Amino acid sequence: MNTVSSLMDGRVRAVNIGLASFAETLRSAGVPVVQVDWRPPAQADPVRGRKLAQLIGNPLVDQANATAVGRMLAVQPMLTNVQVAGELLPELRSGRLLLHAGPPIDWERMSGPMRAAVAGAAILEGWASTPEEAEKEAARGGIEFSPCHHHSAVGPMAGVISASMPLIVVEDAATGRRAYSNLNEGQGRCLRYGALGGDVMERLRWMGARLGPSLAAALRSLREPVDLGAIIAQALQMGDECHSRNVAASALLVRQLAAALAGQEPLGGHEALEFLSDNNYWFLNFSMAASKLATDAGRGVRHSTVVTALARNGVEFGIQVSGTGDRWFTAPAPVPDGLYFPGYGPADANPDIGDSAIAETNGLGGFALAAAPAIVGFVGGTPADALRVSEEMATITVTRHPAFQLPALGFVGSPYGIDVRAVTDAGLEPTITTGIAHRRPGIGQIGAGLTHAPLDCFTAVLDAVVVPADDGAGATPREEE
Amino acid sequence: MNTVSSLMDGRVRAVNIGLASFAETLRSAGVPVVQVDWRPPAQADPVRGRKLAQLIGNPLVDQANATAVGRMLAVQPMLTNVQVAGELLPELRSGRLLLHAGPPIDWERMSGPMRAAVAGAAILEGWASTPEEAEKEAARGGIEFSPCHHHSAVGPMAGVISASMPLIVVEDAATGRRAYSNLNEGQGRCLRYGALGGDVMERLRWMGARLGPSLAAALRSLREPVDLGAIIAQALQMGDECHSRNVAASALLVRQLAAALAGQEPLGGHEALEFLSDNNYWFLNFSMAASKLATDAGRGVRHSTVVTALARNGVEFGIQVSGTGDRWFTAPAPVPDGLYFPGYGPADANPDIGDSAIAETNGLGGFALAAAPAIVGFVGGTPADALRVSEEMATITVTRHPAFQLPALGFVGSPYGIDVRAVTDAGLEPTITTGIAHRRPGIGQIGAGLTHAPLDCFTAVLDAVVVPADDGAGATPREEE
Repeated sequence: MNTVSSLMDGRVRAVNIGLASFAETLRSAGVPVVQVDWRPPAQADPVRGRKLAQLIGNPLVDQANATAVGRMLAVQPMLTNVQVAGELLPELRSGRLLLHAGPPIDWERMSGPMRAAVAGAAILEGWASTPEEAEKEAARGGIEFSPCHHHSAVGPMAGVISASMPLIVVEDAATGRRAYSNLNEGQGRCLRYGALGGDVMERLRWMGARLGPSLAAALRSLREPVDLGAIIAQALQMGDECHSRNVAASALLVRQLAAALAGQEPLGGHEALEFLSDNNYWFLNFSMAASKLATDAGRGVRHSTVVTALARNGVEFGIQVSGTGDRWFTAPAPVPDGLYFPGYGPADANPDIGDSAIAETNGLGGFALAAAPAIVGFVGGTPADALRVSEEMATITVTRHPAFQLPALGFVGSPYGIDVRAVTDAGLEPTITTGIAHRRPGIGQIGAGLTHAPLDCFTAVLDAVVVPADDGAGATPREEE
Repeated sequence: MNTVSSLMDGRVRAVNIGLASFAETLRSAGVPVVQVDWRPPAQADPVRGRKLAQLIGNPLVDQANATAVGRMLAVQPMLTNVQVAGELLPELRSGRLLLHAGPPIDWERMSGPMRAAVAGAAILEGWASTPEEAEKEAARGGIEFSPCHHHSAVGPMAGVISASMPLIVVEDAATGRRAYSNLNEGQGRCLRYGALGGDVMERLRWMGARLGPSLAAALRSLREPVDLGAIIAQALQMGDECHSRNVAASALLVRQLAAALAGQEPLGGHEALEFLSDNNYWFLNFSMAASKLATDAGRGVRHSTVVTALARNGVEFGIQVSGTGDRWFTAPAPVPDGLYFPGYGPADANPDIGDSAIAETNGLGGFALAAAPAIVGFVGGTPADALRVSEEMATITVTRHPAFQLPALGFVGSPYGIDVRAVTDAGLEPTITTGIAHRRPGIGQIGAGLTHAPLDCFTAVLDAVVVPADDGAGATPREEE
């Protein structure tokens, strides 16, 4: 579907894809048309244009997408446990394996902040005693790397997860499927931004020794697991978009856990409450784990063009799509537009990094920007710009999330299920809210702002997919895997 | 100032007050005019009209109002303590005195919910063992009554405060002045709504024995007092208007106190955290105490027409005004428009009750409705209606609060400092968000919605004030008290 047909809910199908006069023609015929920001779309290339024309409105693709999105929306993300990564993912205990954000990348190509996070994790695991030692170890091939996404996990920014780090465990109530994320270190000097030093390592050790165990014990003491979907839905009514703004969700989660944590004094419950008293990013990792759980449910639906992952490793932006399984489609990661801390600017910024764009894949972040107008101030925008972004994202998605409502848009649901067809047809890149890391290792966060998933990732998907024809199986989509 | 002149920021002064054609004339002359909901204004009466004309634009009144509002805005409400009412207000220990919401009222005229709250408080203090005994004691004159407002205090709904109830202590950082409110019982069956029973009394006793002492100890253990103004400012960015919606502020306050409460296990800290884990009205009483502290700072400025209290006792609505000191101007309390719990309707509703409209007097509640669009749903409205109410309230206020910002209106400050001149000129009644109590004693809350401060209260002020003339003292306002 293109911008017009998606707005028209199927009543008008794309005919003259890519013709600038198309919208004007419809408008003069009295058909309602909304004009959105526009970049050269896929169909500038005649081969791609023909393929897109065959995919748009194709009932097999439409139904496959409805299936994928239906499965994603059915997920109920329940916070059940916090447990050491090595226990949850045995592969982390055999040899020296580290997980990282984004699509696959090796040490040689890793950006500064990810190299720093690798060094910090190597020190944490006792594989090295200094960053220099860790770097040598990595350079000689002594450390293996694998994307978090290949292990049902996600990590913000560098996203490095090692065996001894405590992970959030989120389970789907109906199926028992799980997804994981690490625990948030707070703001300031953090490993995930590539900061290194005694303070960073001390906090990581405290998180493993005290924060993780006290949270695990607190969760065990609850009568029922914490419904993260309910917290996200509430937080969207409270100025969060649950990617770059998590103030409300963080406070709601702490309030819900506070009595249980207070009962875990020997394990560090009081220290945990002190640590959480002003951590406004605390919920980000819970939002990400819940989003990973939901989007994984949409994987592997044959012919579906719904995006199941948006992720960045600091060098490349990668996307995964339901119908193409676990294959990554990549393009160079852009540098975000943002507000920089004093003394820093775009020249210092690392290209976009982190698994946190799983939030956008799940209808949060930039897609729910109308819920969090304060974020647009990062890039000099107004609350009206925030509404506009959410409205634009609705033109490249399959449906709206029934529970993730946007008050400023009359409580309409957040745009949900990114459709590669719509992105390439409109040439409209998904908007992502993000933090900005310094490009050099060891420094950390230098700003926050907005970025986009590069159109080239989506065009590459278009080149890879096969146009489905009715093969006698009717319109019922089958599993690819 | 009238609707037009206040919008024009003094460039156009009222000339033909009350003429319906005035706005039209200005509009046709190219002067921007905003039309607001309109009720017959004060100047339908020619005497009042003349007085209003003399008050509007009067430089002595203008400057007095600027002084009053400046003092209100300068207040920094710091939460310093929780202490038993009898210790803070010794008058509660001599004889049998109870405080109540709204302007003065005696037992004979009290509404059902207030009578029930009086009975509960009498049982709590050991003056009676049953509601019937308490009622007899009150009817024979054995209990004295005084408005909370006469004791630097405020209480929501029935607002009954007795000697053994723990009170919130809020102090102005610069002057050391104090204001008080009781602690919130949560939702459901509560004394403040006139519910009675073993469950209600048990919770009140627990609040005195465990909740109050653990909060007091937690506050003493903090390095510095809690800045309630900062929490309110944050909560307005998070969907609260800090009168009928307090979800964000409640969670933020609990998060800030959680570690300190966790350390007060022998006093009941863990029970307190359990109680607070889902009390979404918890912050209301803190908002009210902070608002009382701020508005009290505006009292007693000679010639000022700024409102310093809006309060209801369930029978009458009463207002106090800076230039007329502690005098109450009353009118019958209206029945709120609202959403009722299943099985109840307007015929069951008690007229408007509670000191909670001190929030509106302080730029919150209905004045900040644009921050909390979810509330308008109570009365079948839309987010656009919420914006409109905040915009309307800006036409009857002196200024805007610099820290209480409304995201949906481009982060403009909340309308601040209700001006009796503007209310009577425009005939526009202040909008108040409120809960609804059953009119019969012992039942409790039956709904929530919107109400208005009756225009007659403001017209009565107009009749009472003297038009100031330049008496040689220049435009410098003097204290009346």
